[in-house]
Amino acid sequence: MPTIRVEAGRPYSVHIGTDVFDLFNTEYHELLGSADRIIVIADEKVASLHLDRLLPYLESYKVDVFKVPAGEQAKSIDVFMDCHSFLLAEGCSRKTLILAFGGGATGDLSGFVASTFMRGIPYIQVPTTILAHDSAVGGKTAINHALGKNMIGTFYQPETVLYNVQLLKTLPDHEWRSGMAEVIKHAFISNGQWLDELLAVESFKDLTEQQLIAHLEKGIAVKAAIVEEDEFENGMRKFLNFGHTLAHALEAHLGYGKITHGEAVVLGMAYALHLSGNDKFAVFLEWGFRHGYPFEKIVEISFEDLLPYMKKDKKSSNGNLNFVMLHQIAQPQMEKIEEQFAAKSYEELRLKIGEMTK
Amino acid sequence: MPTIRVEAGRPYSVHIGTDVFDLFNTEYHELLGSADRIIVIADEKVASLHLDRLLPYLESYKVDVFKVPAGEQAKSIDVFMDCHSFLLAEGCSRKTLILAFGGGATGDLSGFVASTFMRGIPYIQVPTTILAHDSAVGGKTAINHALGKNMIGTFYQPETVLYNVQLLKTLPDHEWRSGMAEVIKHAFISNGQWLDELLAVESFKDLTEQQLIAHLEKGIAVKAAIVEEDEFENGMRKFLNFGHTLAHALEAHLGYGKITHGEAVVLGMAYALHLSGNDKFAVFLEWGFRHGYPFEKIVEISFEDLLPYMKKDKKSSNGNLNFVMLHQIAQPQMEKIEEQFAAKSYEELRLKIGEMTK
Repeated sequence: MPTIRVEAGRPYSVHIGTDVFDLFNTEYHELLGSADRIIVIADEKVASLHLDRLLPYLESYKVDVFKVPAGEQAKSIDVFMDCHSFLLAEGCSRKTLILAFGGGATGDLSGFVASTFMRGIPYIQVPTTILAHDSAVGGKTAINHALGKNMIGTFYQPETVLYNVQLLKTLPDHEWRSGMAEVIKHAFISNGQWLDELLAVESFKDLTEQQLIAHLEKGIAVKAAIVEEDEFENGMRKFLNFGHTLAHALEAHLGYGKITHGEAVVLGMAYALHLSGNDKFAVFLEWGFRHGYPFEKIVEISFEDLLPYMKKDKKSSNGNLNFVMLHQIAQPQMEKIEEQFAAKSYEELRLKIGEMTK
Repeated sequence: MPTIRVEAGRPYSVHIGTDVFDLFNTEYHELLGSADRIIVIADEKVASLHLDRLLPYLESYKVDVFKVPAGEQAKSIDVFMDCHSFLLAEGCSRKTLILAFGGGATGDLSGFVASTFMRGIPYIQVPTTILAHDSAVGGKTAINHALGKNMIGTFYQPETVLYNVQLLKTLPDHEWRSGMAEVIKHAFISNGQWLDELLAVESFKDLTEQQLIAHLEKGIAVKAAIVEEDEFENGMRKFLNFGHTLAHALEAHLGYGKITHGEAVVLGMAYALHLSGNDKFAVFLEWGFRHGYPFEKIVEISFEDLLPYMKKDKKSSNGNLNFVMLHQIAQPQMEKIEEQFAAKSYEELRLKIGEMTK
């Protein structure tokens, strides 16, 4: 099965395919067997859909399941403490292993719990969304604060990532949109030919299992290569934030959960492409409209509403607006943008989208 | 001035003396100058006593102070979140530097905040207690959970530790007792000659500044050497928990703040020495009585009251009782102890103490 090695901190492997759960009893049998117990932290929605597919593979181990709210709601300080309370009440120790079963939010929360329980216990990511191909690799863990998303967290690498694409079949449309956003982002910043392939996709649901695996493998490889170079986000890792300055502002302004992360990223990439004067801007906008990304949000929300959030972005400093710009495909660079220029470009984007939605 | 290099993770230096604050404007000028701001997280009691001694050295930087409750009360999830809220509301970024100003609790909290704010920002430890010679070195950060002390935290090294012994003069007696407990623990597990020097001390207050600096330097050197060997506590770092199995149980049973950590550790060391049949047991008990350690707690509290806590200790596994034993000075070893034997030894200790307090 496709396997990508990530050489960040303690090296680990990301396995993608339809039979990855077999590895619980082969390659990772020793790891799981040496744990005094295994706690599955599961997104409650994912648990009701897919727990039956996971648990049979863990029958030879001592397993308990702790369900957390679906999606972004899990990334609160209260749920974080609930997890710790559960682990302590159950008598878990430093030899306990956590298994994160859900999308990016579940992974972010579970990783943060694992990195802080008794100062760190091992964990495995079992992502169940397309979006999580991104968040499950790279060791970023986090919960949200009322004053900002992902503001509290750690860098902490999993023992392995087991990515079972069979679980992706039940994903609703907005989750496909959200996940494919990060896939195409990885193409934008790394590979023009692959980008063209993705831009040509008529409908995500038409992708075969093998095509999907191939796209995910490419996306993870891009992410892994960047994370290896820059585990703690001091340099090129920032390029992964292509489209994210506006995206984070949109998510914060709308309130978490009102727009999916990837959908916001597509809007942000359209903006960043326009800011950069990139000639893929028009075809990308068409691609976005074709797949149903919610561009109307750009029309509804003013630049002034988003500005304060963009100034607070983790990648900003001294109140400047910092963007990952993409003048040429596969050549991202960080640039400081004048507020006035950013505002003008946003208005042009609004006009353009307004015309297309008429 | 005495300086100890700690080679754990990112290497850093611990400076001890009366003029360490000068380093803010010499050796660490570049570090502080490159921060967009400096947030002093200060124990409120320490702030009222000593902030005037610290702030003049930071005049050339942009500094804000956030006061937290004195002592162990600071190590709660609420105070942790208050710190994050303050940092976010103040517009802090990844370029912000935290300065922990207080005892071990303030350092533990501040380190945990620094390790988790935007996934990690730099911090400096400025310990103000003798006990903190121990906790400020080694990169352990933590807050408490209702179900256990230090259960939530990270391993995260400071940029430097600046230990100004002038601030120690105002410490109350119980803080001297608490701090010297870890000093003598470091002697027990490393150096018989130094141990005899400490056991001969009639009164802590009689120590000259130079003697105190020398003892602290030795203690920090022992701690640093062990931490370098075993940053993540998989092996010999556990020896630093000599006396701590019982101590943590005493603290938990009595409720945090009812006994200082070091005082509990002295009681725990007396127990561990007795368990180990160590021939320094009697002279150590005399030393403890001479300095006013609260041995009456051992008489008041039964073994059964402490047992559940000892079974939950982070160093325990599978419900066994694990102790750092010390059959010979400077030769600690982990041993699994039968519950019955542990109970019998505890009763003997109670009798012995009962006789001495008559």
